[in-house]
Amino acid sequence: MPELRRDHIASRWVIVATERTARPNDFALPPTPPQDGFCPFCEGNEDKPPPEIVALRNPETAPNTPGWRIRVVANKYPALLIEGNLDKRPHGFYDMMNGIGAHEVIIETPEHCTSITELDTKRVEEVLCTYRERLIDLKRDQRFAYGLVFKNVGSAAGASLEHSHSQIIVTPIVPSLLEREMDGARRFFEYRGRCIFCDMVSQEIAEGSRIVIEDEHFVSFTPFASRFPFETWLMPKVHQSHFENVQDLGTDELADILRRTLLKLEHALENPAYNYVLHTAPFTSSDMETYHWHIEIIPRLTRVAGFEWGSGFYINPVPPETAAEFLRQSPDEPLKSAE
Amino acid sequence: MPELRRDHIASRWVIVATERTARPNDFALPPTPPQDGFCPFCEGNEDKPPPEIVALRNPETAPNTPGWRIRVVANKYPALLIEGNLDKRPHGFYDMMNGIGAHEVIIETPEHCTSITELDTKRVEEVLCTYRERLIDLKRDQRFAYGLVFKNVGSAAGASLEHSHSQIIVTPIVPSLLEREMDGARRFFEYRGRCIFCDMVSQEIAEGSRIVIEDEHFVSFTPFASRFPFETWLMPKVHQSHFENVQDLGTDELADILRRTLLKLEHALENPAYNYVLHTAPFTSSDMETYHWHIEIIPRLTRVAGFEWGSGFYINPVPPETAAEFLRQSPDEPLKSAE
Repeated sequence: MPELRRDHIASRWVIVATERTARPNDFALPPTPPQDGFCPFCEGNEDKPPPEIVALRNPETAPNTPGWRIRVVANKYPALLIEGNLDKRPHGFYDMMNGIGAHEVIIETPEHCTSITELDTKRVEEVLCTYRERLIDLKRDQRFAYGLVFKNVGSAAGASLEHSHSQIIVTPIVPSLLEREMDGARRFFEYRGRCIFCDMVSQEIAEGSRIVIEDEHFVSFTPFASRFPFETWLMPKVHQSHFENVQDLGTDELADILRRTLLKLEHALENPAYNYVLHTAPFTSSDMETYHWHIEIIPRLTRVAGFEWGSGFYINPVPPETAAEFLRQSPDEPLKSAE
Repeated sequence: MPELRRDHIASRWVIVATERTARPNDFALPPTPPQDGFCPFCEGNEDKPPPEIVALRNPETAPNTPGWRIRVVANKYPALLIEGNLDKRPHGFYDMMNGIGAHEVIIETPEHCTSITELDTKRVEEVLCTYRERLIDLKRDQRFAYGLVFKNVGSAAGASLEHSHSQIIVTPIVPSLLEREMDGARRFFEYRGRCIFCDMVSQEIAEGSRIVIEDEHFVSFTPFASRFPFETWLMPKVHQSHFENVQDLGTDELADILRRTLLKLEHALENPAYNYVLHTAPFTSSDMETYHWHIEIIPRLTRVAGFEWGSGFYINPVPPETAAEFLRQSPDEPLKSAE
């Protein structure tokens, strides 16, 4: 059973594996993903991952057989386990609980695509709707506080398989950076009476220099205080705290701007490794005036010095205004078609 | 002039370069340090880095010539500039100031050593005393709030030169993670009336399972809520907020435990890339009851998924108790002597 352990000093929780599964030498070099040509996420290999939780599939086909467009399965190596009680308890001076949660994989395509941008907008929309449906389903479980949807692309971004997929980790506590954002946004609201993200969107649109794409309901931009070169955020222009309500704004438009923003990053940076993380309000809150969901896209271009996450102190060698200008000039169409 | 820009939402400052120095393709791959055999930090190449600020050298030798043991020079590519005023100002909705600060390199040895552990304890002590002297000197400048001492070893840890060296970045604001630690420690003190780090040391010594080395005045251990495999902290056993006062505890003993802890990590993990960061109280504070300096050592073993620094949510596959056991069993002597 993994454990959730709290660092009282920096107010963060960490998932610690407790099985002695590795010798220290196993950690002496970064693991390289196996490239033996076999892919457990491709159509026809449905028996390799754990059984599907849900799938978008041809109604005439049976679960765990071919005939699907998207499959959601449990992660074969889950960070948290779904079965059990939290059993919150002290450990001397420290606090801990059982590593209960969910860890699911969204396999985005039956073909061996390595980028979600190889899918057309309609299929990207289905992926986003799957995020939404999983969040709605998982938040019913009273043990859970937060659903963290993210995507790792490329081994430099922590991906162990190249087949296009996303993940959801559902935790019994709110991740510390999200909590900090909500604190900051709450303080701003108390002082100014407005959503800080809405103000940010207003200023970005008025200023224009950091905008990547502006559509009717969404905007993508490189934030003023970008931590990383070409860090790009995608945000609804009107206030919405929970991604679960995204259908009110248009999942087709969101799919389009996400795909085009990623295509621009792929063109400008020659298919970089990247992560994106959906920042949304916690399960435990209803509509919030102070929080505003968004997607943070972080290309993994530079070797990040560890002192940066040992200090919270970031040095970004590329001004976001320069990054946005390059991205605006980059094409938002695939170089080659998906098939 | 670089800029310091504030992210109001997550309450963090970022240093953003403002010169357009790079095309986006320059960021498409991680930079590989040049390995052409020439080292600007070796004795005889004193004219390659900027002129020395201070040095430990044979009194008969002139500055910027051979005959030194340690040299401190300005970083050739500084993240912050020493000359100028902060000029704190709004940028619409945002806050910013000029990127004023200091960025120095401590060249730890005239020979081409790639690890500080190749130096004997006496010479490691001189390095630590140089950290202290630079902090004391730099805190005299009223513009500065914090001195961040750190070391990057190996290109996976962000080092661009392999010759053993450390860096100091002095900032006009306190780095956000340090501020968060001080907040957490202050809250604990208000509630319990004790230093949280002192309590942590007590419990670690009582429990024993995460101890790497315990000496008279210092202890190294793998923290209960370790974010990374083999993350190791080194802390004074008695309360001390500012590293600048370390001579009261014994710089020789600190040099010895630091060197032996690093040797154990080098043996156990086969010379890993790593960072260490000195966490100490800000320049602007006098003795603090609530903060306690320490060194955090982070081996760079795994490809960290970017979602971890997009969420503050860490998954550590190696229990710190397992890591500490391996480290206790690892030798703390060099495999070969330095000369």
